[in-house]
Amino acid sequence: MRILLYRGDGVVEPWVREFEGVMPQVEAVTWKEGQVLPPCDYAVLWNPALGLLEQLAQVKAIFLMGAGVDALLKFGEALPDVPLIRLGDAGMGVQMAEYVTHAVLRYFRRFDEYEQQARHGAWNPLPQIPKEEFAVGVMGLGKLGQPVVEAMRHFGFPVRGWSRTPKDIPGVETYAGMEGLDPFLRGTRVLVSMLPLTPDTANLLDRHNLGKLQPGAYLINVSRGAIIAEPDLMTLIRSGHIAGATLDVFRHEPLPAPHPFWNEPRISITPHISALTMRHDAVRQIADKIAALESGQPVDDLVDRSLGY
Amino acid sequence: MRILLYRGDGVVEPWVREFEGVMPQVEAVTWKEGQVLPPCDYAVLWNPALGLLEQLAQVKAIFLMGAGVDALLKFGEALPDVPLIRLGDAGMGVQMAEYVTHAVLRYFRRFDEYEQQARHGAWNPLPQIPKEEFAVGVMGLGKLGQPVVEAMRHFGFPVRGWSRTPKDIPGVETYAGMEGLDPFLRGTRVLVSMLPLTPDTANLLDRHNLGKLQPGAYLINVSRGAIIAEPDLMTLIRSGHIAGATLDVFRHEPLPAPHPFWNEPRISITPHISALTMRHDAVRQIADKIAALESGQPVDDLVDRSLGY
Repeated sequence: MRILLYRGDGVVEPWVREFEGVMPQVEAVTWKEGQVLPPCDYAVLWNPALGLLEQLAQVKAIFLMGAGVDALLKFGEALPDVPLIRLGDAGMGVQMAEYVTHAVLRYFRRFDEYEQQARHGAWNPLPQIPKEEFAVGVMGLGKLGQPVVEAMRHFGFPVRGWSRTPKDIPGVETYAGMEGLDPFLRGTRVLVSMLPLTPDTANLLDRHNLGKLQPGAYLINVSRGAIIAEPDLMTLIRSGHIAGATLDVFRHEPLPAPHPFWNEPRISITPHISALTMRHDAVRQIADKIAALESGQPVDDLVDRSLGY
Repeated sequence: MRILLYRGDGVVEPWVREFEGVMPQVEAVTWKEGQVLPPCDYAVLWNPALGLLEQLAQVKAIFLMGAGVDALLKFGEALPDVPLIRLGDAGMGVQMAEYVTHAVLRYFRRFDEYEQQARHGAWNPLPQIPKEEFAVGVMGLGKLGQPVVEAMRHFGFPVRGWSRTPKDIPGVETYAGMEGLDPFLRGTRVLVSMLPLTPDTANLLDRHNLGKLQPGAYLINVSRGAIIAEPDLMTLIRSGHIAGATLDVFRHEPLPAPHPFWNEPRISITPHISALTMRHDAVRQIADKIAALESGQPVDDLVDRSLGY
């Protein structure tokens, strides 16, 4: 069996070594712009080039090295007509839960204010925000959203969830579809975006929808930057309606040098690190899925091109 | 039934109202320096004055409005010989878990470094610390230590625990007594102190013991300041052996204005807010314990004067 491994950032060697360790019977090949690809059984990609996609019509399936597939689906018609399979959890869920929990606790327990006070040598206990006034609303309840929901429940926050189709999660007030968006947002104090980027979710969090959040709301985005209308967020932060935002993803990454987010103290910026792909976990998961496909069994995490994720 | 309510900080009125709501049949009385106290069945105190303690020989029990009893036991022989009962959890456990989780995640996910980078407009993902190198060691495994242990386990950190007497907690590597201290500390990257202040624990975390922690260790103290030899901590922070400390409690509170902790950027200071007593929860708990005592049943959280907690 021959498997193509490709990453747009060129850092493919560690993946080759990992595959050779996990699937020693497999021949792992790489590709460079301008080369002709030998026939392959499967392709495992991240941020592929068009010249490569055109040579993949014969593979049995294309695996993604991550959970978000927007950077692949943007090729539209140029994409070969083979199954596209994204990464399931692969160690990313707990990392996202860590990231979101840190941000929620930081806001809830007013740690920024305490840090500010300590910088001036001030010893001044602040009133604690009642937990019932700190409902956390998670948008996107898939494999990565669930661990975030569980972490919030562990600490006893009121948890609300929103998804495209109705979901039933014990202890979580769930809402679905466009008709559920309004009541979901109006009861949310901390909004966590775990949504995939699709034509339906692009710019979903604009001035109109973010304005429905409770006054003094917080926003945490760990999925895709283009879900947020960035200038609208700035407007709502400046007006004080949104008290703070923790953003790991942006419309353009790296976040460009002259961007108003950099200088806004109420916005915390991290460089797309909320969930790093754990290479070993990812390769094991892909190996298991290949074994399932080879024996004719169904696999999880098949991308639905019409839904965009 | 008559109950005395007293707080050294004078803020006793909200407690009176809470008792009147929870135990409407009870007469709640307060006391001021110089007054003669009418006969009372029970006393509920925080930071009492000596002149009050001398009048409490006839009460059936003294309840504390918090979990730490060092400020009461320091009166020694002057303390009336009646049962002393501290607060159990009363909403404090989850708050401590929030506080500790925030600090551990902040160190583990390198959020301070990301904040520093963002301040300079730098977009630079950092290598993630492997979780197996981030063992969290919790000292003190009582009612407040347990929720901290559970939160750490929720996120998959290796968890170690140390207590005076041996304890068996699923999924936690436990150590006990002075002979267990050395191996406990040597395997710990993040040390969390939840210990009561007793003659045995005062200055327990000195240069000698803190020096046993793994290089680049972190310290989180949410119990009592006097457990740490403060100048020794400064020495180990300056040498880099301890990479950071998050301190909510101090030998002298408020932390005095000229204290080296204030100006050390690797020390985060909060003003004893990690777990605020939830008045309603506390009063309900005390009411339940009074009901148990009145019907001759045993109660939890009885203070052992010889152990100091």
